[in-house]
Amino acid sequence: MRFIAYLLRRVLVLCCLITFLVGAEGFSQEHPNLILTKAGVEKIRAELGGIPIFDATLKQVKEEVDAEIAMGIHTPIPKDYSGGYTHERHKRNFIILQKAGVLFQILEDEKYAVYVRDMLFQYEAMYKDLPVHPKERSYARGKLFWQCLNDSNWLVYVSQAYDCVYDWFSKKERKKLEKNLFRPFADFISVGNPQFYNRVHNHSTWGNAAVGMIGLVMNDDELIERALYGIKDVKLDVNAKDNDGGFIQSKDKKAGFLANLDEPFSPDGYYTEGPYYQRYAMYPFLIFAEGLQNVRPELNIFAHKDSVLLKSVNALLNLSDKDGEFFPLNDGQKGMSYYSRELVTAVDIAYHFGGYNAELLSVAEKQDRVVLDDSGLSVALGLKENKAKPFPKKSILLSDGPEGNEGGVGIIRYGNEELSLVFKYAAQGLSHGHYDKLSFSLYDEGDEVLQDYGLARFVNIEQKGGGNYLKENKTWAKQTVAHNTVVQNMTSHFKGKYEIGSEHHSELFFSDISDPDFQVISAKEVNAYPGTSMHRTMAMIKDTDFERPFVLDVFKITSDSENQYDLPFYFMGQVMKTNFEYDTPTSLQAMGGDNGYQHLWLEGKGKPSGDNTKLSWLNQGHFYTLTTTADSSDELLFTRLGASDPEFNLRRDAAFMVRRKARNTVFVSVVEPHGHYSAVSEFAVNSNSSIAHLGLIYDDENYTGVAIEDKEGNTLIFIQSNTNGSSKAQHRLKIKDKEYQWTGPYYFKQ
Amino acid sequence: MRFIAYLLRRVLVLCCLITFLVGAEGFSQEHPNLILTKAGVEKIRAELGGIPIFDATLKQVKEEVDAEIAMGIHTPIPKDYSGGYTHERHKRNFIILQKAGVLFQILEDEKYAVYVRDMLFQYEAMYKDLPVHPKERSYARGKLFWQCLNDSNWLVYVSQAYDCVYDWFSKKERKKLEKNLFRPFADFISVGNPQFYNRVHNHSTWGNAAVGMIGLVMNDDELIERALYGIKDVKLDVNAKDNDGGFIQSKDKKAGFLANLDEPFSPDGYYTEGPYYQRYAMYPFLIFAEGLQNVRPELNIFAHKDSVLLKSVNALLNLSDKDGEFFPLNDGQKGMSYYSRELVTAVDIAYHFGGYNAELLSVAEKQDRVVLDDSGLSVALGLKENKAKPFPKKSILLSDGPEGNEGGVGIIRYGNEELSLVFKYAAQGLSHGHYDKLSFSLYDEGDEVLQDYGLARFVNIEQKGGGNYLKENKTWAKQTVAHNTVVQNMTSHFKGKYEIGSEHHSELFFSDISDPDFQVISAKEVNAYPGTSMHRTMAMIKDTDFERPFVLDVFKITSDSENQYDLPFYFMGQVMKTNFEYDTPTSLQAMGGDNGYQHLWLEGKGKPSGDNTKLSWLNQGHFYTLTTTADSSDELLFTRLGASDPEFNLRRDAAFMVRRKARNTVFVSVVEPHGHYSAVSEFAVNSNSSIAHLGLIYDDENYTGVAIEDKEGNTLIFIQSNTNGSSKAQHRLKIKDKEYQWTGPYYFKQ
Repeated sequence: MRFIAYLLRRVLVLCCLITFLVGAEGFSQEHPNLILTKAGVEKIRAELGGIPIFDATLKQVKEEVDAEIAMGIHTPIPKDYSGGYTHERHKRNFIILQKAGVLFQILEDEKYAVYVRDMLFQYEAMYKDLPVHPKERSYARGKLFWQCLNDSNWLVYVSQAYDCVYDWFSKKERKKLEKNLFRPFADFISVGNPQFYNRVHNHSTWGNAAVGMIGLVMNDDELIERALYGIKDVKLDVNAKDNDGGFIQSKDKKAGFLANLDEPFSPDGYYTEGPYYQRYAMYPFLIFAEGLQNVRPELNIFAHKDSVLLKSVNALLNLSDKDGEFFPLNDGQKGMSYYSRELVTAVDIAYHFGGYNAELLSVAEKQDRVVLDDSGLSVALGLKENKAKPFPKKSILLSDGPEGNEGGVGIIRYGNEELSLVFKYAAQGLSHGHYDKLSFSLYDEGDEVLQDYGLARFVNIEQKGGGNYLKENKTWAKQTVAHNTVVQNMTSHFKGKYEIGSEHHSELFFSDISDPDFQVISAKEVNAYPGTSMHRTMAMIKDTDFERPFVLDVFKITSDSENQYDLPFYFMGQVMKTNFEYDTPTSLQAMGGDNGYQHLWLEGKGKPSGDNTKLSWLNQGHFYTLTTTADSSDELLFTRLGASDPEFNLRRDAAFMVRRKARNTVFVSVVEPHGHYSAVSEFAVNSNSSIAHLGLIYDDENYTGVAIEDKEGNTLIFIQSNTNGSSKAQHRLKIKDKEYQWTGPYYFKQ
Repeated sequence: MRFIAYLLRRVLVLCCLITFLVGAEGFSQEHPNLILTKAGVEKIRAELGGIPIFDATLKQVKEEVDAEIAMGIHTPIPKDYSGGYTHERHKRNFIILQKAGVLFQILEDEKYAVYVRDMLFQYEAMYKDLPVHPKERSYARGKLFWQCLNDSNWLVYVSQAYDCVYDWFSKKERKKLEKNLFRPFADFISVGNPQFYNRVHNHSTWGNAAVGMIGLVMNDDELIERALYGIKDVKLDVNAKDNDGGFIQSKDKKAGFLANLDEPFSPDGYYTEGPYYQRYAMYPFLIFAEGLQNVRPELNIFAHKDSVLLKSVNALLNLSDKDGEFFPLNDGQKGMSYYSRELVTAVDIAYHFGGYNAELLSVAEKQDRVVLDDSGLSVALGLKENKAKPFPKKSILLSDGPEGNEGGVGIIRYGNEELSLVFKYAAQGLSHGHYDKLSFSLYDEGDEVLQDYGLARFVNIEQKGGGNYLKENKTWAKQTVAHNTVVQNMTSHFKGKYEIGSEHHSELFFSDISDPDFQVISAKEVNAYPGTSMHRTMAMIKDTDFERPFVLDVFKITSDSENQYDLPFYFMGQVMKTNFEYDTPTSLQAMGGDNGYQHLWLEGKGKPSGDNTKLSWLNQGHFYTLTTTADSSDELLFTRLGASDPEFNLRRDAAFMVRRKARNTVFVSVVEPHGHYSAVSEFAVNSNSSIAHLGLIYDDENYTGVAIEDKEGNTLIFIQSNTNGSSKAQHRLKIKDKEYQWTGPYYFKQ
């Protein structure tokens, strides 16, 4: 026994010695430690087979990776834009590499490690002598891809694969990979491309995360520092712009991951580029945060800026329609939703690191898959234990700007997203911003009633301009006339100039979303057209005389000169009825030469028949009526997109546009969903508007008043203060011998 | 005991006497006996609570009727077209009356009988002095509605209500109702409107059924005779037409329900007006047949014409896409489907009276409701006992014409309706027919790839022309250019004249749908353009080098003169890519002045770049490519619907049109679905065509040969005989030194 005890002591000493030596050589960390942890993997292995959503995801991922392994490894010489073969192949490679790494950890099957090793060494062999990518369009060309952005995507994913297989590699293998592939790769996208790396922009976020993550795996402090704080002492041309027309250099010259967290996110978690890019940036933000939390917990990254990362997940989920599709504010491809892989990651990580919010579980349940890591395990266990609660999307105001004082986006919802209004009074949104101050869009359940066009791009579809932004994105989608807001003298806000737009933002004037039957947001924009002030108030009202809630829109314009104001409504569906006569031309002409008007055909032109203009349309089995106060000089225009579109890049969408020449004016409108039609029963129910008359009953510098008379003879009165947004201010106003008294910025009586 | 026996005998004699007396007074029938039977009702009552689909339907119907009862009875003075209040109210009334009658029988709650009685007597009081409907548009104005057709609808439903409450009424009440309401009602729509009643047309079917059903309830042989055989010795103007432009008088002057069964149905159960109207006529056909079967079983109506009624249900179900929506052949409103109330009735009755076909149960299961009668009980019991089998929709050829020798409609399906081709080579289809010989449409699962426009009408939507046919139905939807077939010299088939079109039909030349990987139908049309013969062959091919099945289209034209041929493809979705240059005009002009061309804007114009013309598009996440053989003189046109449309009645749909000037020519085309795109994953997979070259390798009077070379370098050869459709004929042909030998009308080699 003594001898055995002696032996044990010797073994113990030996072990300590080895641990010390290994530590001294920089292997003090255990792997995996990035998105999987040693403890987490053990827990996953123990739970496997009893965690349905995790088990199902694992099965799918295994099938996917096994199929790829069977097809062999392909690392073609880079050649194509997105959508082309080499681009899509390398993209597929990094996604599969990450998954193979995870499978190796969870399933302990060496074939996945072999696959990762073999592919990495093919890349290692190729990368050493790889020139910059042959396609020249990007302001920051990558090597594997045409942009550094995509190279960064690659490294974010491949870092995870490397972490998973790290311990299985020999020291020599690791050294070779790091020396010839990972370190030069990280250097190329950072110090090699500071105009890409040292910005406040979603591109840089990817770059920062890529450098940081490989730095965490390699335990390379220099790279981690560079990731968090950017490259020190870089001089960038202050006038240089990227491919989207955005400035390279941010205002205060900050850079790095923390700067990218601080600046584009408002304190509410709204990302200034808009939800589509927030979704895109979400992955590097959260996956790198997860790695930091695991390896550098002392940074407490999830608590940074009052937990802005966790708030941003909540904000982003709220920026979706009933079907989970993101509102296409600024450049946003329609159809992108919280079912995307980025949001699966975001929801799982926010659940795991954000205090196990049970509402997130119901979103994860809809997503029907999890990330195969510690956070996904948490979600799977939560679901298994039936902890999920509904994620209620209510009305919400999200501020914009690093300090939350640069306007914002308001979403007014009625019921269970029966009707959702998106009102934008935000800042420019960096290079992906549109010139659409005070614009709005409207959703009936998950369907658009009045649309925001979104972007003019077919992301990753090679046939359409290499999958990149089409020129119509600039000439149409970004222009003011492409949005449901006022255009003055056929010129976009800020003359469509990024330099000017970036200097300004709209201002929230007042809001009240406390009463579900009357929710209102009011905002002002005074810089879009110098000398002209625009003030728009949007309310969602539910009244017992109306079958459904409706939207009241009061757009007040004050100017120091006479102008032509165009207010388009991009209605979805087919015209049912108008209350005015109009002519349709025998040939179609473009409505203008620039500012987006060159893309609009004029399909019809009429004049008001009285003091209300009405248009009804039918879409997806629902009727809608726009009622708007008319001026006898108004021109009522039907427009159709598609002019100056030599490659059929644009959809043939319609708008109804009210054109008015005036100095000061108010456009008062009601958008009213009503009734329904079924092509199966062929019953048309409640197919007519319930509004008998809409009137502007008062308007001066201080107050604007509106009366909505319904067909039952009842009248709703709305009056707003135009100057005092305070909830405490007391008002008194006489309109037609009747005195109104109220406290706060508005008066409303049903 | 003796006394009791004596008493019993007396009672027995008394009962017999009463029965005899009642019988002598025409009350020999027991009620209900039309769609419910006494025995059936007892069985339903016994099963209630244990037949889920029936119980659920009953609950819904009860809620619906109870809500109507609570709202009170309204029988306004007739005034409106369809979509208007009085029309919709009277329509709702007859639907609710029928349901209330059924509820009275099943639930034995007198309130339903009271409701039926009260409403019927309101109608009775009103009808006596009711003039003809004030709206004058119809060729056969009704009294409650603007057309006799809708009055007939009313009587078909109300007969059922009356039957259900018949025994509950006093004799005096019955007499009053029959004398003042039902008999004059039946007379008005028949002898009062022979131009409506005495035809072969879906209108008359409704009229016949209405008269017959009230006749069955009233046990009125005269009405029943009139229903079955029409009005004797009526003289109709042989040149008179109805509102749709159809002749009033049928060719052989037959009339009545049996004539309407014999003539418009082919032996396969195809209804010559098309599936939309077959669905509409289905209800009176089957509900009256059910009544006849119950009251006059000796007629054996379901066996009539080799069980054509039962076959027609099968045919109609097969005339739907994967979502159950009917192909919009001829006048058909898109969206109408086998979920309609008419098809619920049709499926239930076909199941109950057609030998309990278990495949129909799976359709009933999808419909998720049943008719509340004996047939619905049968279905409910069948489902309860898990007898349902899938209803497989396979490729099918349906003949047209009373004898089945007037062309037809062929549907080629691949897999589980993965791809479905609808090829029309039928007769004119009475007044609802379109001038679209040899046209086709194509469906990817339930989505249109190449569309048939359908009709230009918003059925029952009052705002759109009173819910009736819009003038664009004639000027656009019926015209040849609105369809995927050849237009010669910008003139519709048969000059768009119904008189000429009704004299002719296309001919099936050959077909073979036996091999799922190569299914083909070939048809000819020689009368649409005198002097020009058109021969179109359409095949669906699945080849291992192609991801998905594709369509080969060989359109051969032989003429005695030089002509301009336009072949449009109404593709759904957005242009992705062409292999040719084209110009887009700075202003849009209509392409012509009539024959539908007045509605088409010319959006682009190009010339072929080689001997193949290619167009790719994206729709609903799927890519498609049209490859077509080019002639250097071809004009390639992009068209957009919407010109000459002063009320926005038309959709803004696109077409790609190949225009060729020639005497004899062959358009060889392949429509190829491939790949997919997801806006969530943003992956574009297989977004390019797999066809390297499409060639017309042989063409003369006798044979036409096609070669399809794919990108793997393999070539598919298709050769057809142009003159001999026999499956036994032997052929031998040399093409470029290679000799082909085969038996039957075509050669195909993969």
